[in-house]
Amino acid sequence: GKRRYTTIARVAQNQSYWESIQSDIDSHLKKAIPIREPLTVFEPMHHLTFSPPRTSASALCVAACELVGGNRADAIVAASAIHLMHADIYVHDNMLLTDRVEPRPTIPHKFEPQIELMTGDGIMPFGFELLAGSIDPASNNADKILRVIIEISRAIGSEAMVSDQDYEANIDQSSGQQIHRLHESGAACGAILGGGNEEEIERLKKFGLYAGKIQGLLNKMGKNEEGKIELIEKWRALALKELEHFDSKKIEEISSIVTGDSLKFSCVGN
Amino acid sequence: GKRRYTTIARVAQNQSYWESIQSDIDSHLKKAIPIREPLTVFEPMHHLTFSPPRTSASALCVAACELVGGNRADAIVAASAIHLMHADIYVHDNMLLTDRVEPRPTIPHKFEPQIELMTGDGIMPFGFELLAGSIDPASNNADKILRVIIEISRAIGSEAMVSDQDYEANIDQSSGQQIHRLHESGAACGAILGGGNEEEIERLKKFGLYAGKIQGLLNKMGKNEEGKIELIEKWRALALKELEHFDSKKIEEISSIVTGDSLKFSCVGN
Repeated sequence: GKRRYTTIARVAQNQSYWESIQSDIDSHLKKAIPIREPLTVFEPMHHLTFSPPRTSASALCVAACELVGGNRADAIVAASAIHLMHADIYVHDNMLLTDRVEPRPTIPHKFEPQIELMTGDGIMPFGFELLAGSIDPASNNADKILRVIIEISRAIGSEAMVSDQDYEANIDQSSGQQIHRLHESGAACGAILGGGNEEEIERLKKFGLYAGKIQGLLNKMGKNEEGKIELIEKWRALALKELEHFDSKKIEEISSIVTGDSLKFSCVGN
Repeated sequence: GKRRYTTIARVAQNQSYWESIQSDIDSHLKKAIPIREPLTVFEPMHHLTFSPPRTSASALCVAACELVGGNRADAIVAASAIHLMHADIYVHDNMLLTDRVEPRPTIPHKFEPQIELMTGDGIMPFGFELLAGSIDPASNNADKILRVIIEISRAIGSEAMVSDQDYEANIDQSSGQQIHRLHESGAACGAILGGGNEEEIERLKKFGLYAGKIQGLLNKMGKNEEGKIELIEKWRALALKELEHFDSKKIEEISSIVTGDSLKFSCVGN
């Protein structure tokens, strides 16, 4: 019937929203990290940037920027930097034996381990280099960029290592603090760069945190389901509550990151 | 005789100059990284920050700032951040089997390897967090801080991986590009933060590069001395040439980083 058709159309529309964002981020990264001489440096860097699955934290950065009325172009560098941080973490998780994450599909190892690890180490600072280089005197955005650098460095630095101390910590813990933090920080950065006010930034930051928690838990679904569905439902409700503040047609687009329709897509994308 | 006495006095004076800088950097780091709850995070972070030998790249940052007429306080956060980058690199070099560096004395492993590595990963972003957080609206230094973030992120990121292609590359290579880059970047950052003009920044950047090359090579002295002494002499002359431009009593202090007197100290310090 009509209802079913509408639902499908909405799913398709939302998918194409996230896909168009991801496509713009990829284009930006390809320009920022071309395969050039010396190939021994830039080929592995290119490989390790584009091999990991995409994180929805990057796309969320752009969506948050657009939600508060900013232009996509204002958030694309930060979104790219967030992907680079994610790629660095991913390379380490997949190269090293740590108890941080459980085994998951690894990227094909095209280069010697020490080359990949060394390159991985270079990806994170390159993200900061991109960010710091995105100041534009014409738009007087230096303060925003500095705030974004603080947000992102906290997300992957000291704060990321401080675990949540609350009741949900146990089940939550294993799904990776850094996924939460990257989403939280991605949404906050988008809101900052899009010119959101303090309340908008705070609300989108919380929205991002819940979206990240949901993503992290979904990555682990399939074993020990107990309590997870309820936790996701709870986080989804908390996430959507933050969006009530906004009066915008874009709410539907950004909210699809925590609602069922797009979760399948997000799962693929993360 | 008197000459000998003067030399000793000068050595002592220069040592106390570098030592006073290092002491100020350590104080700043101790305030920035206190041992606090949760101890599982901040104890290893503290340990991995203070266990590695100090790098003269940090001290050079402060000395360059003072040479161009800046206050020590203007450069202390950047100098601390440079130490954190150095500590991150050091932890990785000592934790992982790479062909980047030859074996050297390792720091005592106080914690599980995965804790140390995870903490090491958090040290670098924490350095960026400190930098970005050091903007001071009263002194309108946002543009300087952003430039410093670019310098440091380049030093440890993409540029650090691009090797010198010149004749000296072979002998030079093995002593670690990152030591050069950190010194080069440290001197440049100090000059930027101290309010140096473009020529001063460029000259101190070159001075820092040569100082870093010398430090890197000295770290490897003891085997295959062939050609190394000449190389050090050549770099020292090139370094001192950059200082001719400056008209300041401070030249003697900063130059001691590449002259024999202080090299012993610098060796200890690096």
